[in-house]
Amino acid sequence: MSIKRVGIFDSGVGGLTVVKEVRNTFPNLDLFYLGDTARLPYGDKSEDTIINYSYKNTKFLLSFDIDLLIVACNTSSSFSLPFLEREFKLPIVGMISPGAALALKRTKNKKIGLIGTRATIRSGSYRKEIEKIDSKAEVYDASCPLLVPLVEEGFFDDEVTEIVARRYLKGLEEKGIDVLILGCTHYPVLKPTLKKILPDVEMISSGEATSLHLKEKFGLGESPAPPSKIKGGLRIFATDTGTHFKEVAEKLLGENIELESVAL
Amino acid sequence: MSIKRVGIFDSGVGGLTVVKEVRNTFPNLDLFYLGDTARLPYGDKSEDTIINYSYKNTKFLLSFDIDLLIVACNTSSSFSLPFLEREFKLPIVGMISPGAALALKRTKNKKIGLIGTRATIRSGSYRKEIEKIDSKAEVYDASCPLLVPLVEEGFFDDEVTEIVARRYLKGLEEKGIDVLILGCTHYPVLKPTLKKILPDVEMISSGEATSLHLKEKFGLGESPAPPSKIKGGLRIFATDTGTHFKEVAEKLLGENIELESVAL
Repeated sequence: MSIKRVGIFDSGVGGLTVVKEVRNTFPNLDLFYLGDTARLPYGDKSEDTIINYSYKNTKFLLSFDIDLLIVACNTSSSFSLPFLEREFKLPIVGMISPGAALALKRTKNKKIGLIGTRATIRSGSYRKEIEKIDSKAEVYDASCPLLVPLVEEGFFDDEVTEIVARRYLKGLEEKGIDVLILGCTHYPVLKPTLKKILPDVEMISSGEATSLHLKEKFGLGESPAPPSKIKGGLRIFATDTGTHFKEVAEKLLGENIELESVAL
Repeated sequence: MSIKRVGIFDSGVGGLTVVKEVRNTFPNLDLFYLGDTARLPYGDKSEDTIINYSYKNTKFLLSFDIDLLIVACNTSSSFSLPFLEREFKLPIVGMISPGAALALKRTKNKKIGLIGTRATIRSGSYRKEIEKIDSKAEVYDASCPLLVPLVEEGFFDDEVTEIVARRYLKGLEEKGIDVLILGCTHYPVLKPTLKKILPDVEMISSGEATSLHLKEKFGLGESPAPPSKIKGGLRIFATDTGTHFKEVAEKLLGENIELESVAL
């Protein structure tokens, strides 16, 4: 099966960290991104609400005749994947399985840390996936509800973010983890801060894990073109464009974008 | 006109600070509260989205045959009041006009500080209202997007909240304001922290301002009953009940509640 057009959604701007990684690794793909900014954040909402929003997002992206869907939101991946797979007949990649596989590949002592939104942690999605592959691995998790708003506000490398992150990570540090799954697509921009707190721990991001998964499971070939030679298109939609989405999106992607509005 | 049944909505739990004040002042009213938790927060969203959500919330509360509507959300009050007043034929009380009037009543030097969400500040709603009443008053404002998530996470009196609030308030302090409008119904629980930063400044809360407005403009009489003798009913609905809403709501109200779910 030839994959040329890929739909990607997240609750907001965070999924663009996945877009960036996928676009740089597979520069010939045409990407269609939807940020559901009118209803973000998903991370503190209930299962039914998250599934309902994910369904609507997928419906919209299907109108672009996509060959594959990436659910670039760990919260949505944790709850809505089985539902979406039942409802829609196209390959769907979530964040959980690729992240779990990459963490297991990289850990040496099998003590895996996980941070995410309250909903992602509550779901137990990563834990189940990791234990399915390797029952000896231990997972230590912490929900970090304030990290998303801190990233949305641009507090990337900031005293406040560091104090908050230190509190969230305290329990994990004591367990002696050697990898940490950044179980939310907002978190990769916080790597420098997280590295200050856990300098010897390897950070696993959803973007890297997704690119690896696309190669291994879907046989997508990397293009030899350097990132500056990106040929594929990128259209970006948001359900609420009246915010500072464009500004943060351009900062995350490192390129200028044209933001399109859609009501769902 | 006799007012017995009052509908109140907010994007989430914050409006309960208004409910508490109104319920203690007018203990015979029957109150119907809606927290639009499935779509919160409103404060970073666009005008169209906020009006759309406010319309749906009002429609729902009208099903309880209410005599008056309180829009207990400063962001919604800033954008949707004229629209709601055109669409619906019942008295509607927003947060802006009562808050502006109370601030002008309390200020001595006519230098008024205002904090709120990004959308509330961007709207200029308080500034316009204050200048309409007294063109000599000066308004100094600051948007404080992180305070809502900090309150939602229970960081009421916390080092992190204090650092963040100090940054937001720095500019206002330098202007010599003598009152500060807490232009978001989440903020009253932060009073102790805000008082540490601005000890000589009087804080104006939406709840107090609303109660005063109901007395002066609608002739609602205070009941002589002490708060322990509340006779009116209180029903609380949320559009997403899978969160920690109930827990935070009971903390804010100081009473146990039965939370009802509604899909809008």
